[in-house]
Amino acid sequence: MFTRIDHVGIACRDLEATIARYTAAFDLTVLGRETNEAQGVHEAMLVVADSATGRSCVQLLQPTRPDTPVGKFLETRGEGLHHVAYGVDDIVGSLSALRESGAELIDETPRHGFGGSAIAFIHPRSAGGVLTELVEAVRRS
Amino acid sequence: MFTRIDHVGIACRDLEATIARYTAAFDLTVLGRETNEAQGVHEAMLVVADSATGRSCVQLLQPTRPDTPVGKFLETRGEGLHHVAYGVDDIVGSLSALRESGAELIDETPRHGFGGSAIAFIHPRSAGGVLTELVEAVRRS
Repeated sequence: MFTRIDHVGIACRDLEATIARYTAAFDLTVLGRETNEAQGVHEAMLVVADSATGRSCVQLLQPTRPDTPVGKFLETRGEGLHHVAYGVDDIVGSLSALRESGAELIDETPRHGFGGSAIAFIHPRSAGGVLTELVEAVRRS
Repeated sequence: MFTRIDHVGIACRDLEATIARYTAAFDLTVLGRETNEAQGVHEAMLVVADSATGRSCVQLLQPTRPDTPVGKFLETRGEGLHHVAYGVDDIVGSLSALRESGAELIDETPRHGFGGSAIAFIHPRSAGGVLTELVEAVRRS
């Protein structure tokens, strides 16, 4: 089902300061920045590796407001690992297979993710306490 | 510095039950199981993807006793994401570069990891609140 670890999502209070730390210490490059109003986050993708099956990235997330999922996460858990995302070739088919297997889906249908990707979240109750995301990337020509 | 996301480490209370959940729902295969007495964990590696630069895995961790780092993590945070590990080609050189950049290292020298790999941890204070691990895998012939 999974083609790669697409990214690890990290919640932070200061996006630019955390980008600066990750690029300086770990020599990662910034693929891009976006604001996703629907999810209430300012985000940046930093490239760890790029291969035939797609990129693996670190995703840094700063909430746009305190009353957002990532804002509430920071309030209760502090900065750190927020979720893990896996690449899939067919997100609709993968969601269907997960539903059949009894997994609890947060998103029954895909929504908009970074760079035009399609994404959907699976509930931590179905993944060992881990907020888990599927990503179908835009195909590169 | 990083060649891939080597693995995401997930703390769980029941290793076999979590393996069963991940293999059934996400169609992952078990690469192997080990007990690392020095770290106080029973662990399993589940393969997400395998490429020229190495494998990307989910690592499931069950503490051998409550008074271990992962046991204490479960007590205070519950099951879920524990750390992220990145592949490197030269762990000693990478640790040296990180030390020079001012990063706070938990391990000044590498120690023994899964499958004969060399591993070292970087303090969350130097990585946006994320316990971060470097992995130099055993070279495959």
